[in-house]
Amino acid sequence: MEIKIVQEKLAKALNNVSRVAAGVRASLPILNNVLIRVDDNKVSLTTTNLDMAVVSFLPASQCKNGVVTVPARLMAEFVGNLPKGEVVGIVSENEKVTIRAGEYSSTINGALADEFPELPEIDEKKAVRFQMGVEEFKEGLSQVMIAASNDTTRPALTGVYFNTFEGTLYLAATDGYRLAERKFIEKVESEVAAIVPTVSLQEVLRSLNDDVDEIEILFDETQVRFRMGEIEVTSKLIDGSFPDYRQLIPKETEISLELKRDELVRITKLAALFAKEVGGSIVCEASQEKGGFMVASVANELGENNSEIKIDIKTDGKVTLNSRFLLDALNVLSGNEVEFGFSNKLDPVVLKVKKKTDYIHIIMPLKG
Amino acid sequence: MEIKIVQEKLAKALNNVSRVAAGVRASLPILNNVLIRVDDNKVSLTTTNLDMAVVSFLPASQCKNGVVTVPARLMAEFVGNLPKGEVVGIVSENEKVTIRAGEYSSTINGALADEFPELPEIDEKKAVRFQMGVEEFKEGLSQVMIAASNDTTRPALTGVYFNTFEGTLYLAATDGYRLAERKFIEKVESEVAAIVPTVSLQEVLRSLNDDVDEIEILFDETQVRFRMGEIEVTSKLIDGSFPDYRQLIPKETEISLELKRDELVRITKLAALFAKEVGGSIVCEASQEKGGFMVASVANELGENNSEIKIDIKTDGKVTLNSRFLLDALNVLSGNEVEFGFSNKLDPVVLKVKKKTDYIHIIMPLKG
Repeated sequence: MEIKIVQEKLAKALNNVSRVAAGVRASLPILNNVLIRVDDNKVSLTTTNLDMAVVSFLPASQCKNGVVTVPARLMAEFVGNLPKGEVVGIVSENEKVTIRAGEYSSTINGALADEFPELPEIDEKKAVRFQMGVEEFKEGLSQVMIAASNDTTRPALTGVYFNTFEGTLYLAATDGYRLAERKFIEKVESEVAAIVPTVSLQEVLRSLNDDVDEIEILFDETQVRFRMGEIEVTSKLIDGSFPDYRQLIPKETEISLELKRDELVRITKLAALFAKEVGGSIVCEASQEKGGFMVASVANELGENNSEIKIDIKTDGKVTLNSRFLLDALNVLSGNEVEFGFSNKLDPVVLKVKKKTDYIHIIMPLKG
Repeated sequence: MEIKIVQEKLAKALNNVSRVAAGVRASLPILNNVLIRVDDNKVSLTTTNLDMAVVSFLPASQCKNGVVTVPARLMAEFVGNLPKGEVVGIVSENEKVTIRAGEYSSTINGALADEFPELPEIDEKKAVRFQMGVEEFKEGLSQVMIAASNDTTRPALTGVYFNTFEGTLYLAATDGYRLAERKFIEKVESEVAAIVPTVSLQEVLRSLNDDVDEIEILFDETQVRFRMGEIEVTSKLIDGSFPDYRQLIPKETEISLELKRDELVRITKLAALFAKEVGGSIVCEASQEKGGFMVASVANELGENNSEIKIDIKTDGKVTLNSRFLLDALNVLSGNEVEFGFSNKLDPVVLKVKKKTDYIHIIMPLKG
C-alpha cells in the first residue's frame, strides 16, 4: 500500500475517525486501530467500536492499492504534529507502516487487516432514506437528545426515536421525567420507527463540520447510516420499543404564561443555587395577588430565595420542578419568547417557543 | 452592616476571593465562608484556607459598619447571576444576610465573624519590599514554577525560592531533575531568602487582572504578601532550606547548538508519541556525519521514530532526556532562537534563549 497526501487533509480525516478507536477495550486491541484502505486512488480510514463505525474518505493520488491497520491515536497525533503543507508519504510492508514527511520519518507497528472486525453493511438500495439541512439537524438533535436517559437498564430510553407520523418525520426522547419532541420533515414518503443510540448521535454531531450542508440518513431493519460529505457514521439501532409518547403530551394547559427566556433562566438559576440540598427542587408560582410569576427555593440550611417576573396573571397556580430539567429545556429553546404552560400540581409542564410548533418540551412535576 | 454596590464590582471581587474558600475541609466549615467587613465606607472581602488568605477591597457608598460571614461560593454565584448594572443591597442582621437587587431577593444563612480564623498580619513597616511590573512578574514566575516539585515529602522543593544574590533578585525552583532560574530586579537594596509555596503563587497568578500594572511583594520572617491593586494575597512561607542551587548550573557546555524553538518542539513531540511506553525518554544526538541534530525515540512495541534538524555540527554528542521536561522548558522560553547546550551523557543540559541571560533552565539527563 502506498499513499501521498497533504498533511492537513490527512490530519483532519484521522482526527475524525480516531475518537471512536476504543483505547480501553483491552479485550480486543485491534479496535484501537484505524483501517487504512486504498482502492483505485480512493483512500478510506475506518474505525469501529463494534456498536458503531466511522469511515472517512479522502482523495489522494499516486496510490498503490492495499490495506493495513495502525494504532489510530498514535497515527492521528503523529500526522497532526507534522508541518502544515508538507506532503506525507505512507508506505506499508506487511504490518509495518512507514510515514515520511520532509526530515521526519517514523515506522509504526500495525496489524494485518484480516484481524479487523467485519464492518456493518447497509443495502443502500433497500434502505429508507431521509435528507435534511445540517443546521436544522444539529439544532433539532441537540434539542431532543437532552431528554434521553442514561439508565442502561431501560435501553429504549437511552436513544432518540426517529419516527414518522401522519407523513411527518419526528425525533423524540424521554427519560421518564421529561420528554422532548422535534418535528423535522413534512410530507415524507417513507416510514420509519427506529431508536438510534445517543452515543452514536453524539459522534454524528462531532463529525459534522462546516464544509457540509446536507446530511443523509439511511435506515435498514437493524442499522442506521449518517452520511455527511466525506464522513459516514454507521450504527446499530437499539432493539426495543419506544413508549407511545404522543398520549403524554397535554393538548392544552390551564395556565399559559408568556415569559422572556433570559429572565426565566436567571430566576431559575438563582433559585437553583439554594436548592442544592433538596435535589434541585424549586417552586414556580403564578399569583394574581402578588402580580407576577415567582420562582422560589424551599427554605433550608443555606437560606431562602425568591425572585419575580412582573406579568399579568389571570389564574393562580403552583408547581414544583427539578431546576436542572427546567434549565436544560430553556437552554435549547430557539427564541427568547417562551410559553410556560402548567395546570395543577401533578400535570406536566409544557415549554415551547411562542408561535413555534416544531418543538415541544415536557417536564413532569415533583410532588411539592 | 449595610452595603450598596453595583453588581459588576461585587461579582468580580467575590469571584476573586471565593476560589480560596475551601469547600471540602469539613473539619472547619467556616473556611467555606467569606468575611465581609465594612469600616467607614471601605468594604473588604476575605477568605482563607489557613495557609493563605485573599482580601479584595472595594469602594462602596451608603454603608453601615459591621462584619459578617456567608458561604463564599453561594454568595459569588448568586451575585454573579444578578443582572449587570443593577445596584445590589446587602444587609446583615446577626448571621442572616439579605441580598436585594430589583425583583430578586435572598436571605443567606451566614455565621458570626468571631468564628472566622485570625488572619495573618504583616508589619509592613519592617517588611522587606520589592516592586515590579505585572507582565514581567507573570512571565518570570511561569518560567520558574514549572520546575517546582509536587512531592510533599520534600517541602522546600514544592515552592519557588525568592533570593537576592550580589544585589539582584532571583526566583528559582527545582524538583531535583530540573532547575529553572529567572533573574528579576537588579540593584536591589534589601535581601531576601524565602520559599513561597507554589499553590499560593498560583493563586497570585489567578488574581492578576488587566487593571493592574505593578505588583508589590512584602516579606517578613514567616510570611509573604502580594499586593496587586485592590487584591492582597498573604501566604505562609515554607519552613526549610533551599538547596545551594547555583553550584549545579554548569559554567559552560561542550556542545552548544542554536536551534529554532518551534522545530525543536515539533521533533520532540513526534518522538515523545513513541516514547510513552518508555516513560517519555528520547535520545538527542548531534552528528557531524549525519549533518544535523536528531531526536529519536527508542524502538519499542509501537514502532520507532527519527526526526532531524539540518545544522552544522562541530562536535558529536548524545544525551537521553525525559521528553516532557524538554517540552515544558521549551514551552516557557521567551524567543524562537534557543541555545541547547550539553556535554557528555551525564552532564546537565542547559536551555536558554539566544543572547538572553535572564533565564536559564537545566535538565538532568536520563541514563541512556
